[in-house]
Amino acid sequence: MKIKCEKSALSTCVNMAAKAVPRETTLSILESILIEAKDGKVTFTANDNDFGIFTSMETEVLEEGKIAIDAKRLCEIVSKLQDGEITIVTEGAEARILCGKAKNKIPCRSGEDYTYLPEIEKKDPIIVSQFTLKEMIKRTVFATGNLESNKIMSGLHMTVMDDKIELTGLDGHRIAIRKSPLRNSHEAVDIIIPGKTVLEVSKIIPGDDEQEVMIYVTDNYIVFSFGDTVITSRLIEGKYFDVNKMINADYEIEIKLNKRELYTSVDASMVYYKEGNKKPIIFNIEGNNLHLELNAQDGKYDNDMDIEHTGSDLRICFDPKYIVDALKYIDDDDIYMQLMNNVKMPLYIRDKEDTYTYVILPINN
Amino acid sequence: MKIKCEKSALSTCVNMAAKAVPRETTLSILESILIEAKDGKVTFTANDNDFGIFTSMETEVLEEGKIAIDAKRLCEIVSKLQDGEITIVTEGAEARILCGKAKNKIPCRSGEDYTYLPEIEKKDPIIVSQFTLKEMIKRTVFATGNLESNKIMSGLHMTVMDDKIELTGLDGHRIAIRKSPLRNSHEAVDIIIPGKTVLEVSKIIPGDDEQEVMIYVTDNYIVFSFGDTVITSRLIEGKYFDVNKMINADYEIEIKLNKRELYTSVDASMVYYKEGNKKPIIFNIEGNNLHLELNAQDGKYDNDMDIEHTGSDLRICFDPKYIVDALKYIDDDDIYMQLMNNVKMPLYIRDKEDTYTYVILPINN
Repeated sequence: MKIKCEKSALSTCVNMAAKAVPRETTLSILESILIEAKDGKVTFTANDNDFGIFTSMETEVLEEGKIAIDAKRLCEIVSKLQDGEITIVTEGAEARILCGKAKNKIPCRSGEDYTYLPEIEKKDPIIVSQFTLKEMIKRTVFATGNLESNKIMSGLHMTVMDDKIELTGLDGHRIAIRKSPLRNSHEAVDIIIPGKTVLEVSKIIPGDDEQEVMIYVTDNYIVFSFGDTVITSRLIEGKYFDVNKMINADYEIEIKLNKRELYTSVDASMVYYKEGNKKPIIFNIEGNNLHLELNAQDGKYDNDMDIEHTGSDLRICFDPKYIVDALKYIDDDDIYMQLMNNVKMPLYIRDKEDTYTYVILPINN
Repeated sequence: MKIKCEKSALSTCVNMAAKAVPRETTLSILESILIEAKDGKVTFTANDNDFGIFTSMETEVLEEGKIAIDAKRLCEIVSKLQDGEITIVTEGAEARILCGKAKNKIPCRSGEDYTYLPEIEKKDPIIVSQFTLKEMIKRTVFATGNLESNKIMSGLHMTVMDDKIELTGLDGHRIAIRKSPLRNSHEAVDIIIPGKTVLEVSKIIPGDDEQEVMIYVTDNYIVFSFGDTVITSRLIEGKYFDVNKMINADYEIEIKLNKRELYTSVDASMVYYKEGNKKPIIFNIEGNNLHLELNAQDGKYDNDMDIEHTGSDLRICFDPKYIVDALKYIDDDDIYMQLMNNVKMPLYIRDKEDTYTYVILPINN
């Protein structure tokens, strides 16, 4: 194999593919990036058996070929190359990476041993703006649970119905739901995507509102395609929780309040929130005042804020982290919190347009 | 004690003092910042028995007093306060930190138990620009050794002679020397400052070339004073190495070369430089060409660069890290490297104006 390319393009491709290289694997070929040069195009592939990235660039191919190079080493070398034209040429089991007078010679393997994820047929895409998908993921994935405790909870639930997409994350203590319009209409989809996958996707996609992501779904896989890059991930098997049954449209108490003020105040109370000693924050709703209070052994925080309030007064306790997590991802200046007149029933933070719903279970004080 | 102050000023003082609070100490009072309010001024003090910071602000003192508050907790609380006026008021063993409607109540101790570093009489200062001191430290302290292996080597040697200051760091493999003019003339000084102290000082002083640092030296202590802040540190006892005896003004080979090109190239070779497998970089000086080469088990790097060269050819090996470390702190476009015609004799990188000297011992290949 022999190719010539610009450093910047090579760097982009190599660093993109490297994100799918597993940190630990028993299959040593997967520690590599597969580089394939053919028809004036060079492609870069990496996967960990469950999650894969494929990207490509058009460049000068002087000799076609397919090799596997250790991903970590390749990224390091490329990052230290000077800007300009790079030549990659193989000689037997050695790859030479040349830039000006500088030469790197490293071992490489034949690409024939590489194990791919299955190729998914790209038809009938779900089309969504990069910005929308990126934001929806960030605003729900934080609420998903650990892989260790429950596999289903560790995934993000994605449903499509006509031209609407909905993402849901939950961990047994809270639920985060985001709804958005799609750019097209699509038949119904109901899948669970691994949390790790969506986190990577939300980091990798550029997030341009003008640009789109094409999503393809099969029984076992999901594919995100944008620009020259394709991300493939295995899905989580199983049936997601019936979240609609958990969510109550009714409420007896509603307060309207400034989001930033509440966020700042609950965040400030977390000075006394320590691993192994997580004290709840007390919400004391009394008339048009919300009194917040956190009492720890080594300090106390309290604050008052003005609210609009309908329904009876209530004193109810929450884990302050869950409040802060939800508020962090709401852009509205004012938010609505809805409660039942019952300290065991959850808190709803939701907008009147039904684009988001955050549900937080109270805790005992 | 009762004071009122602006959040920003409080934040600056608290974060400054906190830098001297030890991470671990058997003397629990030293985990605190001592706050003393008196005569319209509030002072903040912290020390770890060897190194101390004192800073102050002028503000409204409604009731004089002296208290000690846990430094970590105080910093966290202040960082979460909203901008604006803060009140700190004590009631017995409780300090209240009030900001708007938000209240923090935390334990505090009497300041009477606090243990201070000795007060140094501030007369006869050595005066140097903040920028000069900060840069000189950064450009020498990297060459100092570990505290564990040799106490003297772990310090930075500072000498003053008339209106010149000189800093030297060494670790047995290399020496870094920087010389600069002072803003005043001062009697001779010859001291060893702990590496930890100078690192903190270089981070803390703002580095303005227009602003000065006043340095006061006694037998056992050094004091750096700038703005409203005073840093005090114990000195390392003992006699520093006679560096002049180690340094040779003579050389048989001199090469002049582009600093950036050499830095980039040696840095690129370090892709193959791994803990436990530190291969040397070979400098092969042949006519007007410098051939660089690093051969590791899992890869090879080589490069060529044009040089100006007087003296014979030479093939000599160095630890690439020491080369990169020295080059990082040289601003000159072109540098001079001086060698003897002997692979056991050190490399000198020094400018013709004698503002810096970096000495690096070769290693066997």
